[in-house]
Amino acid sequence: QGTRDHPPAQAALRDRLLRSVVSCFKRHGAAAIDTPALELRETLVGQYGEGSKLIYELQDQGGELLALRYDLTVPFARYLAMNKITNMKRYHVAKVYRRDNPATTRGRYREFYQCDFDIAGQFDPMIPDAECLKIVHEILSDLELGDFVIKVNDRRILNGVFAICGVPESKFLPACSTLDKLDKVPWEEVRSEMVGEKGLSPEAADRIGEYVQLHGGLDLIEQLLQDPKLSQNKLAKEGLGDMKLLFEYLTLFGIIGKISFDLSLARGLDYYTGVIFEAVLLQQEKHMKELAGVGSVAGGGRYDGLVGTFDPKGRNVPCVGVSIGIERIFSILEQRLKASGEKLRTTETQVLVATPQKHLLAARLKLISELWDAGIKAEMLYRKDPKLLKQLQYCEDTGIPLAAIVGEQELADGVVKLRDVSTREEVRV
Amino acid sequence: QGTRDHPPAQAALRDRLLRSVVSCFKRHGAAAIDTPALELRETLVGQYGEGSKLIYELQDQGGELLALRYDLTVPFARYLAMNKITNMKRYHVAKVYRRDNPATTRGRYREFYQCDFDIAGQFDPMIPDAECLKIVHEILSDLELGDFVIKVNDRRILNGVFAICGVPESKFLPACSTLDKLDKVPWEEVRSEMVGEKGLSPEAADRIGEYVQLHGGLDLIEQLLQDPKLSQNKLAKEGLGDMKLLFEYLTLFGIIGKISFDLSLARGLDYYTGVIFEAVLLQQEKHMKELAGVGSVAGGGRYDGLVGTFDPKGRNVPCVGVSIGIERIFSILEQRLKASGEKLRTTETQVLVATPQKHLLAARLKLISELWDAGIKAEMLYRKDPKLLKQLQYCEDTGIPLAAIVGEQELADGVVKLRDVSTREEVRV
Repeated sequence: QGTRDHPPAQAALRDRLLRSVVSCFKRHGAAAIDTPALELRETLVGQYGEGSKLIYELQDQGGELLALRYDLTVPFARYLAMNKITNMKRYHVAKVYRRDNPATTRGRYREFYQCDFDIAGQFDPMIPDAECLKIVHEILSDLELGDFVIKVNDRRILNGVFAICGVPESKFLPACSTLDKLDKVPWEEVRSEMVGEKGLSPEAADRIGEYVQLHGGLDLIEQLLQDPKLSQNKLAKEGLGDMKLLFEYLTLFGIIGKISFDLSLARGLDYYTGVIFEAVLLQQEKHMKELAGVGSVAGGGRYDGLVGTFDPKGRNVPCVGVSIGIERIFSILEQRLKASGEKLRTTETQVLVATPQKHLLAARLKLISELWDAGIKAEMLYRKDPKLLKQLQYCEDTGIPLAAIVGEQELADGVVKLRDVSTREEVRV
Repeated sequence: QGTRDHPPAQAALRDRLLRSVVSCFKRHGAAAIDTPALELRETLVGQYGEGSKLIYELQDQGGELLALRYDLTVPFARYLAMNKITNMKRYHVAKVYRRDNPATTRGRYREFYQCDFDIAGQFDPMIPDAECLKIVHEILSDLELGDFVIKVNDRRILNGVFAICGVPESKFLPACSTLDKLDKVPWEEVRSEMVGEKGLSPEAADRIGEYVQLHGGLDLIEQLLQDPKLSQNKLAKEGLGDMKLLFEYLTLFGIIGKISFDLSLARGLDYYTGVIFEAVLLQQEKHMKELAGVGSVAGGGRYDGLVGTFDPKGRNVPCVGVSIGIERIFSILEQRLKASGEKLRTTETQVLVATPQKHLLAARLKLISELWDAGIKAEMLYRKDPKLLKQLQYCEDTGIPLAAIVGEQELADGVVKLRDVSTREEVRV
């Protein structure tokens, strides 16, 4: 349940999509790493807030207690700590596992790819953060997914809001994970969960409500820096200062037009400590009604405390990263391809080796072997004596552009007849 | 235990290796498919003989009982049956999981990549089988792994040998899985397991011993076809006839020199029904003593009955395939790289955007943004005011060939100074 096979047409489309994402990561100088799909249970438990109940655990068959990775961020932090790496720019494309309720038409699966890019290291503020947003902008533009907006917020600003609204610090994370639902349900519902389940006072919830419905640009940052209460909160002030710097860098990158400073953005995961962001598609194509809820297609943020949880001495490595929601993008591209009627080739075969008469299998085997050895992508039918028509039909069905034909005459003359399948032109070579 | 992280240098080498293998699979016209790492437990259990106890099971957390895939062959057969596909040539590169005793210096892990190529469908005998062997030959030659031999046998011949030696049919598979150890332990040990654990009579074991120590070429096939007892066994005769045909095709492919018909080859898995094969490296390089046991680097065979076990009506699809032992090959290439002292670049960055004076971050951000948008792989240091020396040092450390330098003078002149890092030549552009 919630997993799927990818037949060749899907695998080819996915390959094209992943190649585009990876080429962007490489353009930004990232190196690849790979970590196991299995992690120690203790590595994962407690890192994901409410998500932790969705972790797939392996049966205790003796030895270590294991679980399947839930994302690529925690394994990356564990990798940095274990190898005492304090400085790294890496990408990782791999599958992760969540025992979630699948919603497959919206691209939500229990096994799905993540494409992550992260920058670890102690650097000057907001330079790596700005690059992560630039990457989101490049990928969404390259894939021509239509108009989008990248919402940006900062956990320090949110925590500042919670503090000045009278929320005790122990309830910051629970309040945050409730707020995270605001893009799916109306404020009234979020408010009632905050008051009911999370135990905030109604007054606190109402005051939070006033802040988190704000969104805008540099003007909003300036306004909040002047806010008599918020500007007195040390963390919020730091966050707002960095947000201003981030906006400056994003202006230099020429992408500020797609950025929205949005106080409702919370992100569900516990480990974020600073800037957070999420990219949302603004318009859905007509033939994709069932995708209306696709929404977020990339997200990420700063997590300066995660590596320290894996270091025996608690030494931290500041990190910021982005994860591309490849499954959702894939759903969109898939339905777009279907609507266009375009047929994606699933193989790259350049030439079919064919024979027009019987008893010529040996000639085909010799010729195809020569072609393979010369690096040419070649196929033949696995029949001793296939009909020529059937061989040419196979070319048309699978998009093979050329047929290399050896008949008795060609053998006698020491040539091959090369046929262009679509134009039917033939040359002897 | 038995898993490992791949740091960038390893990931880059692995990527190079996988690309070489995949390009061979594509050269032979295979399409890619992808299946989940999770399968229903019932899909896997009972398919692998003695290997079944090494399957990783997931905890019962409600819902389906799951396990991690043990290989890519059984999921492929399940995929064919589920989708009623009777004809397909596919490759699949993915990780599989086995709770085995790890022997990491020999490249044996609990999580490891498999690279599989399979041909499913009803075709004329031995044509797809011969192509699988050609693929093994091409890959091992392309990777320059030194001299190798591809051992070939047929389960029908083995079963014929068992039958004429007086083994009851119910003991064919157990005898086969014992025989599979003959490449690691001497015949005496195999014989004693056959007699002790597997309950064969000592006479049967001795007679088996005479056959399974035979190996050779076409001459041995002819000799066995004349063998008064074996030639009377229907299955063995079929197998020998096909083996002769296979040798004919492999001669046309020009690879017969590396092929050895070897009656000791058994392959451990239960699902094989016809031709089986295994490629073995003959010489180990001097600096790789610990790899002495690497041995087998590719294997496969025909499994005509596996798809039927997943079809409600038992409909079979004949299949033959090969799996490349990428981890073992990786261990060899890794140690060879280490011995050569060659340093593999882990990124593809073409240019570092640098500034020689302070207060020029904005100029760097603008220039690098232009480069990224033009598809150029570019990096910059995440510092407001890094020293030029430090920036050039970063190029040398990571192999970036060019530095694009913007200073106050360049800004005033509207140019960029492009520096070749190794020759120190500079041009203004």
